[in-house]
Amino acid sequence: MQPLVIDPGQVAEKFRAELRIEIARLPERLKLVGLLVADHGPSRTYAEYTQKGCDDVGVQFDLQAVPRLGVEPAIRAANADPGVHGVLIYYPVFGTEQDGYLRDLVDSNKDIEGLHSFWARCLYENRRFYDAAQKKKSILPCTPLAVLKLLEAAGALDANAKAPLAGRRVCVFNRSEVVGRPLAAMLSNDGAEVVSFDIDGPLLFVPGRAGLAHEVRETTIDRRTALAAADIVITGVPSREFERIRGDEIREDTVCLNFSTRANYDDSAVQKARVFIPRVGPMTVTMALRNTLRLYQNSRL
Amino acid sequence: MQPLVIDPGQVAEKFRAELRIEIARLPERLKLVGLLVADHGPSRTYAEYTQKGCDDVGVQFDLQAVPRLGVEPAIRAANADPGVHGVLIYYPVFGTEQDGYLRDLVDSNKDIEGLHSFWARCLYENRRFYDAAQKKKSILPCTPLAVLKLLEAAGALDANAKAPLAGRRVCVFNRSEVVGRPLAAMLSNDGAEVVSFDIDGPLLFVPGRAGLAHEVRETTIDRRTALAAADIVITGVPSREFERIRGDEIREDTVCLNFSTRANYDDSAVQKARVFIPRVGPMTVTMALRNTLRLYQNSRL
Repeated sequence: MQPLVIDPGQVAEKFRAELRIEIARLPERLKLVGLLVADHGPSRTYAEYTQKGCDDVGVQFDLQAVPRLGVEPAIRAANADPGVHGVLIYYPVFGTEQDGYLRDLVDSNKDIEGLHSFWARCLYENRRFYDAAQKKKSILPCTPLAVLKLLEAAGALDANAKAPLAGRRVCVFNRSEVVGRPLAAMLSNDGAEVVSFDIDGPLLFVPGRAGLAHEVRETTIDRRTALAAADIVITGVPSREFERIRGDEIREDTVCLNFSTRANYDDSAVQKARVFIPRVGPMTVTMALRNTLRLYQNSRL
Repeated sequence: MQPLVIDPGQVAEKFRAELRIEIARLPERLKLVGLLVADHGPSRTYAEYTQKGCDDVGVQFDLQAVPRLGVEPAIRAANADPGVHGVLIYYPVFGTEQDGYLRDLVDSNKDIEGLHSFWARCLYENRRFYDAAQKKKSILPCTPLAVLKLLEAAGALDANAKAPLAGRRVCVFNRSEVVGRPLAAMLSNDGAEVVSFDIDGPLLFVPGRAGLAHEVRETTIDRRTALAAADIVITGVPSREFERIRGDEIREDTVCLNFSTRANYDDSAVQKARVFIPRVGPMTVTMALRNTLRLYQNSRL
């Protein structure tokens, strides 16, 4: 039986249709600033995707080509400009830890990618709102959020339930600060038990009690055991060294998703899975646009 | 002529003598919490230095051995405890970008190492005070601060001047987020022109106009030219690949300092320099203790 292959572009289009309507109703035109240093490669591609996404939903996009030393002043200018509603930086800028400094320099209220440490803390502490009145919904990082929305489209979670992933077992291969670790935390905050694999070894993310944040535990589980138990497998491994996941390692009812640009699944796994989601790209930009709308709405609450 | 070799232990003792008196006068006993994961190597050594430093100046030190997953809850507990005045984390904990998350999780008012992004922003923006009344002095990261105090002890700067390093040329080999980059910024905020070398190439830090923050510029200057012009040379290169600085590369009136544990100067340079400062260790702990006192005093302003 062929797996159901989900096209993230189609799922993105559904979200964009809604965004288009809501954005058109706003009293002012939303504007994003994009800061691009390397005018080629993945950064350029992501910037082009952003341009298309903005055009598609009616958001103004001011893409600025800047030298690396121009990024910091450009962030300060965008932070200070009330006409700018969101800032996107196309990393790497310096390609060192200094990029972390830039990431936190963006005003968290304009951080539509949800990468600021303020949003990270909300996520890891499972604070779904960030105001005392519990009206302003916290911003989630756009790639992990895209993954969750794609899992929902695959019928792998029940978005209306209190714990949409209760009882589900998930394997995530990647524990980066940008995608893998926040993703594992979000999945377990939503009820899943998550085995997070990385070159540093596995960690277990388990749901917290009654709305509390997830807990993280050491584990010695191996890949074979974790995959055999997994309802959902998520990969994002950019390395050549990674041994692609094979059909004999997963179950027939597994939902498999890859957010890396490198193939992380062997054909035998792609054929055996119930659902295969080969990429998330268009959904990431769409979630950034959704975050833009949410931050604008929050600013007026 | 033999160079003047400065013993950081002696300089530290002068600061500790002052600290001892001021700390004894406080209405309560200062208490630090140290979180140690790896019970061996440089972390253990630094923790032992902290213990000695605390004993020496009359600060209580609660050194806690914790597993890596215990660091986050221990930080939250220390943040919440009004009896704890400072928190030290002995990195690496995870050894990944996740350590950056932990670093910013420490309450900036208890971050006696001055590593929090709040303090980094004060430093890079040259904001010497962080309250509207301009009474609360900003905290500086303890290793770069130790370097500045050692340069002062070497007679290489005039601490009472408005721009203590005006007209001085400095070379810094290391541009890490923890030491080299903040150090270059501090030196140029104090008037120096700094060539910052790193594997990513050189950058030029120049003083800002009239109290404004320094500016950073691209440069193509090479090591030979920069060293020949340098009044002060500072190294912190942990790599074997680094070609040690030789006597023929520096001037006879140069002040040389090494904050790495690896020898970064050839004997010919050590012999030729006017002043040689071989390490900073004891001063780093002392500056952390000084920051503890300052944060306590700030909290009561």
